[in-house]
Amino acid sequence: MTGSDFLHLDPGDAPPRGRTAWLVQELREAIAGGALAPGTRLPASRVLAGDLSVARGTVVEAYRRLAEEGLLITNRGGGTEVARFASAPAAREALEAEPPPRALLNISAGVPDLSAFPRAAWLRAERRVLSTATSHDLGYTDPQGVPQLRAALARWLARSRGVTAAPERIIVTAGVTGALSLLAQVLRDRGVAECATEDPGAEGNRRILGYWLDALHPIPVGQDGMDVAALARTGARAVLVTPAHQFPTGVVLSPARRRELIAWAERRNGIVIEDDYDSEYRYDRAPVRALHAAAPERIVHVSSLSKVLAPGLRAGWMIAPACLHEELVRKRWATDQGSPALPQLALAELIDTGVLERHLRGLRLRHRERRDAAVAAIRHHLPGCRVEGIAAGLHLLVWLPGHVDDTAVAARAEEAGIAVQPLSAHRHAPGPPGLIIGYGPHPAARLDAAIQTIGSRSGLSSA
Amino acid sequence: MTGSDFLHLDPGDAPPRGRTAWLVQELREAIAGGALAPGTRLPASRVLAGDLSVARGTVVEAYRRLAEEGLLITNRGGGTEVARFASAPAAREALEAEPPPRALLNISAGVPDLSAFPRAAWLRAERRVLSTATSHDLGYTDPQGVPQLRAALARWLARSRGVTAAPERIIVTAGVTGALSLLAQVLRDRGVAECATEDPGAEGNRRILGYWLDALHPIPVGQDGMDVAALARTGARAVLVTPAHQFPTGVVLSPARRRELIAWAERRNGIVIEDDYDSEYRYDRAPVRALHAAAPERIVHVSSLSKVLAPGLRAGWMIAPACLHEELVRKRWATDQGSPALPQLALAELIDTGVLERHLRGLRLRHRERRDAAVAAIRHHLPGCRVEGIAAGLHLLVWLPGHVDDTAVAARAEEAGIAVQPLSAHRHAPGPPGLIIGYGPHPAARLDAAIQTIGSRSGLSSA
Repeated sequence: MTGSDFLHLDPGDAPPRGRTAWLVQELREAIAGGALAPGTRLPASRVLAGDLSVARGTVVEAYRRLAEEGLLITNRGGGTEVARFASAPAAREALEAEPPPRALLNISAGVPDLSAFPRAAWLRAERRVLSTATSHDLGYTDPQGVPQLRAALARWLARSRGVTAAPERIIVTAGVTGALSLLAQVLRDRGVAECATEDPGAEGNRRILGYWLDALHPIPVGQDGMDVAALARTGARAVLVTPAHQFPTGVVLSPARRRELIAWAERRNGIVIEDDYDSEYRYDRAPVRALHAAAPERIVHVSSLSKVLAPGLRAGWMIAPACLHEELVRKRWATDQGSPALPQLALAELIDTGVLERHLRGLRLRHRERRDAAVAAIRHHLPGCRVEGIAAGLHLLVWLPGHVDDTAVAARAEEAGIAVQPLSAHRHAPGPPGLIIGYGPHPAARLDAAIQTIGSRSGLSSA
Repeated sequence: MTGSDFLHLDPGDAPPRGRTAWLVQELREAIAGGALAPGTRLPASRVLAGDLSVARGTVVEAYRRLAEEGLLITNRGGGTEVARFASAPAAREALEAEPPPRALLNISAGVPDLSAFPRAAWLRAERRVLSTATSHDLGYTDPQGVPQLRAALARWLARSRGVTAAPERIIVTAGVTGALSLLAQVLRDRGVAECATEDPGAEGNRRILGYWLDALHPIPVGQDGMDVAALARTGARAVLVTPAHQFPTGVVLSPARRRELIAWAERRNGIVIEDDYDSEYRYDRAPVRALHAAAPERIVHVSSLSKVLAPGLRAGWMIAPACLHEELVRKRWATDQGSPALPQLALAELIDTGVLERHLRGLRLRHRERRDAAVAAIRHHLPGCRVEGIAAGLHLLVWLPGHVDDTAVAARAEEAGIAVQPLSAHRHAPGPPGLIIGYGPHPAARLDAAIQTIGSRSGLSSA
């Protein structure tokens, strides 16, 4: 057993298989506590690995992860130092915000491969925008979104999603959250303070709607999608659905159910909120048209670029029935006068130049390979489990044997450094257990390692 | 009388002194109606001017204005064509949105010189951000704002405004509107559904607060700022003030009134919203400290970069008492999960590298020259009128003789193509007439011409 003078690190404190996580945590605490001041140079990975008698890869990986968090910076020369932004409070915050304290690998759903964000193309678009933007473009924004982006979205949605809407009917929003919050508020203002949601369904959206509304009604989802008869038995006049690719089960709302849903909306004078969240990713199936075109005066079409570019862009849109449009725009005006102009103009540029579609084709290939790797790993390491929802999206659903507690499986995985979402986390009523595995950000080897760990920790592995 | 084959324009239709406005309107309608399709090349200004028997400058100016609206594009070779974004609906919208149909010159208040936006510096900042941002930076944002920007703002506010707040207490908002809307909602949730505002005061902010709250109480503003005794007579427990540079009178809240205001807040268990909207621009006076430091648990400090960089950035911030902080952040999460990440990171970069402060010094010089030009023009063309509020800001206030109707003066100016705000537009209770003149975006000659026109149209000119 050895140790380093640097921070008096003692690898004897580390759990046997979690040295990287331990080292990350020690360094993070040292930065948060001020023991490592901004600008401090860290020992070379070779040197620190020698002091600690750990593999050099352990130190390299720890530095890499802290660099990803923005706490460390790697210089051109190869040296590593504490980032100048890594103020003690910021680091402390990162420490508190970190959900699983020793997460090695986050395979929970909902994020694309952000390392693929088209940085060069974005910068080129920004350059062009900055060289052509008028003073009018930089002034107070149109709350509904800059006309250039609305025009680009109208063309793109028409050709890619079968959604036909004039630019003047498109409302640019801050992602799907921005759309749902405006909608929930406008519906509530009109006395519609309850909304039905899919069960299982995206917990994040349920929390947003739950913040603004009085009650949510969970509606069971089966192989054909939401059970519209069950919806009709509730008092709700609004419903949130994911018709093209249900979250998290991956099922498609069947043609019969689509007709039933629209009939329900007509009968009930209701509103269907269609979250088209990741419809761009389909692998082995024909495209599923958006619901919107079937009843544009009953359906609010909502989507975003969070799954195609990055959630951090906060770029989404909404197309609402005419009877809601003005109030939604007015609410957006009163909320923040609309989204920032420059990123909207850059996005319009990316769409109009075809860069976005090219990027999407590349991502689809990459995500499909990862999907295949995840499926293979599950067949190998979780041999008794059925896999569903693999034809599209960025995640898949692994059904666990009925007696298994999926929350306990996720908890044991977390102890081993794997963050994975149990299906229960997205359920309202109890139901069969499952795991949702987001494969978007991870190469095949990492997915295999993560799924192997889940298998061995949960006892579901045959190994 | 002549005319052009191009669009069958007939200058005989133009009002004698408004040929540029007429030509702008004709071209705009042709683009909106589809007669001029995107990409269509326009006649050279020399040629069209010849056809129409107007000065070439008339055509050049019309093209320039439409280019500013984004409807025309000037090629490198000097040719002018219809912008490809200038879809008919977008143009039609611009047509409808245009407040005065033939505004030659907008000298209403509230916007800096947007042609000075530091485009190159912004692009450099974006490049650096894109080359260093982690996947974490591009993922779901912190609703409170990215830590890097909050840290940069904390340092900047401390050194420039005497506002001391830890980064974890700063909430990044979508401009002042974003801050006021969150605040108004959180106060309303707590049963505080009425707010006092300055009279005269910024009409835009009053409209935002009025959207969210049940009632607003106008409080008279005098030479020492808001009349705190009058405030105390209302039932309001919240008040919006502009202590450093009152909008639109330009007065400073006196030390005695500051003390009274804070005593009122303590007594009433109230909240003071300090809008520090353009405190960066001061010319002939010592800096006025923000109110915030005097009672951080009673004061919400609100400001933005709309007057320093551009309103289109939607970049602002808020520092609130601890008792409101968590609810404000939660409301922001439920509204849109926070502002887009990339512009926040670029701003942090601009602040931390000192670019923003250098930019501000340059703007201050430029705006001061324009202020001087506006004051000189008013003395010359409106000789009987007192000018106030000139020591700071981006606008000044011209008091008109008591018998004059400022709305009528503004209407006559508008007929002549000058958009200027009457003081009445920002008043709740009736009061002496005045004009608010925003000089930020305009060079001296344009200001002189605009003010001369106002003088001659209103009969207030000695000429």
